[in-house]
Amino acid sequence: MQKRLEELSSWLKEQETDVAFLNSTENVFYLTGFHTDPHERLMGLFVFQDAEPLFVVPGMEVGQVKDSGWPYEVLGYADHENPWELIKASIDQRSVSNANLIAFEEEVLTYSRSKALQALFQKAKVRPIEEKLNEMRVVKDEDEIAIIRRAAEFADYGVKVGVEALQEGITEMEVLAKIEYELKKKGIREMSFSTMVLFGEKSGHPHGNPGDRKLQKGDFVLFDLGVVLDGYTSDITRTVVYKEVSDEQKEIYTTVLSAQLASLEASKPGNRIGDLDQIARDTITNAGYGDLFPHRIGHGLGINVHEFPSMSHLNNDLLKVGMTYTIEPGIYDPNVGGVRIEDDVLITENGHETLTKYPKELQIIG
Amino acid sequence: MQKRLEELSSWLKEQETDVAFLNSTENVFYLTGFHTDPHERLMGLFVFQDAEPLFVVPGMEVGQVKDSGWPYEVLGYADHENPWELIKASIDQRSVSNANLIAFEEEVLTYSRSKALQALFQKAKVRPIEEKLNEMRVVKDEDEIAIIRRAAEFADYGVKVGVEALQEGITEMEVLAKIEYELKKKGIREMSFSTMVLFGEKSGHPHGNPGDRKLQKGDFVLFDLGVVLDGYTSDITRTVVYKEVSDEQKEIYTTVLSAQLASLEASKPGNRIGDLDQIARDTITNAGYGDLFPHRIGHGLGINVHEFPSMSHLNNDLLKVGMTYTIEPGIYDPNVGGVRIEDDVLITENGHETLTKYPKELQIIG
Repeated sequence: MQKRLEELSSWLKEQETDVAFLNSTENVFYLTGFHTDPHERLMGLFVFQDAEPLFVVPGMEVGQVKDSGWPYEVLGYADHENPWELIKASIDQRSVSNANLIAFEEEVLTYSRSKALQALFQKAKVRPIEEKLNEMRVVKDEDEIAIIRRAAEFADYGVKVGVEALQEGITEMEVLAKIEYELKKKGIREMSFSTMVLFGEKSGHPHGNPGDRKLQKGDFVLFDLGVVLDGYTSDITRTVVYKEVSDEQKEIYTTVLSAQLASLEASKPGNRIGDLDQIARDTITNAGYGDLFPHRIGHGLGINVHEFPSMSHLNNDLLKVGMTYTIEPGIYDPNVGGVRIEDDVLITENGHETLTKYPKELQIIG
Repeated sequence: MQKRLEELSSWLKEQETDVAFLNSTENVFYLTGFHTDPHERLMGLFVFQDAEPLFVVPGMEVGQVKDSGWPYEVLGYADHENPWELIKASIDQRSVSNANLIAFEEEVLTYSRSKALQALFQKAKVRPIEEKLNEMRVVKDEDEIAIIRRAAEFADYGVKVGVEALQEGITEMEVLAKIEYELKKKGIREMSFSTMVLFGEKSGHPHGNPGDRKLQKGDFVLFDLGVVLDGYTSDITRTVVYKEVSDEQKEIYTTVLSAQLASLEASKPGNRIGDLDQIARDTITNAGYGDLFPHRIGHGLGINVHEFPSMSHLNNDLLKVGMTYTIEPGIYDPNVGGVRIEDDVLITENGHETLTKYPKELQIIG
């Protein structure tokens, strides 16, 4: 965390920006190592060019922040206190209230908090800080990769449990419940998003909701799930068929798998991000399914399950060692059903590693 | 929804406010009947004094909004479009761009969206709208009460499943997993907050985290859980003891139960909200446990599991027919463990009804 705080301070100097204020739980966690959901209460981190950082948390969290090893000032406040008054007193000691330029998360900070913040630095203009944090967070260090790797193992396990639960007549929600049950028994407290289990025609909609649809012979079964582990996420999609498979289903599956493998193949340091989408899109279009792949190829993966970068065909940035993201092409036919195959990918010196390892060849279950 | 929109338009006239913009999924749901999580995409509702409301949603949601029966303009936008430009064109047709005063959720709207909104109404001053929405949402209508009543039944069922799962050596997470499994099998897609199952000394912390603590003879077992159903929430806490109970545990339990019953007894139209907290607090203080009840007696309950009003001893507002809220006193002894008993309460013409109905007398399980 020390190194991350130093990098942010250097950036402030370089950019002639006096103060950074972080308010999202994700960026605060990234810079402090401390994770909690403060609900409606204020939690935020001030970082300066030279002065000591200031971490503001609800009073009941102060002990845990100190226990977590945070070496700088932590300011706790009680529910009846106005944290912004206490912050003012603390900041006044740092001789930074004459700031000319402050940076904060313009896409996160609420209007009322932006007013309170601006009242602390009355002369200051404001600028966004998202881009800098995105740039820092996009390359994962070894500790982060180790956690995401374990989170991906749990995602694999979730799919395994789901596939094993399949039997004629079982509902989507029953399978979903079984998956989350087994993951919770292994200590997983939170899924990284609402688990998706979709049967048959319901898999043909990229944003379907699991319900009481019963499993029938010839159904596609689409699993999309992930876990939160030590503040990081995973995200896997697998599709299997139940008992029998039609030629059309086979063709759709094979096309998606080819697209996914081609996109993985292009996952190397220095390659253009947009090309990963384009390569998969070309494969699917050439097979005649171009209209049935309505979403981007993937998204960055880390503290947030959807984070920077957006893996769309328009993205001209280049892949760097340590990036983690998803590759998830799909074909959705409202009549036949849908197939999506998604892996979590890490860019390595030599190319890439897929962190999710559940098999991808077409499985006919039961 | 019609009536709610009309009430808001009347308020705008009365308050000489030209435009209201709602951005929280909760207030948008309350006023449109449409619920979705737009993630980072913009979803918002414009309400005017006389002009037609304007509902802005991501393009892929337009069909569902129309299917839901929304009778006014719905504006969808594609990912490559700037929704604020489309909004400007739509609003220009309403001759309201000369607005002098606009109202929005100052505690919700992000800085960048507040800038985009203010750019639409360049002459306008701004004001918060939270208070008006709180006032509207605090009294539930019959449809809302019917849903909350069913959500409370599922909460009761969750506790029942949890109590039946107790056996020597089982862990907190295993019991939690079993509860959520059985609820999901009944179609519940989302819990209203992270389910809490705490054993023994761990129940002695109001914000403990379930883990691999194993159940032992003489443990308190505290369950705190709720479900989301059709956009509304429930929230129940029950505490039981496993196999044997000490005199001290009995005294703590009896004290909490007396405090809870006294507070429920005072739950009548016209009574002061703060008194509900004070009555419970006095009971607990008189029994010598005043220092071990560190939180307010409860909170409003509805679309949000924690919503207006805050049931603290400082609240001078009066109870009204149709209010729904929790009553949840607790005593937390870091050595002996903790007891909390929580019901969801509805204010009726004649007094109140508790919507959660799981038994409250001390149960010794096993």
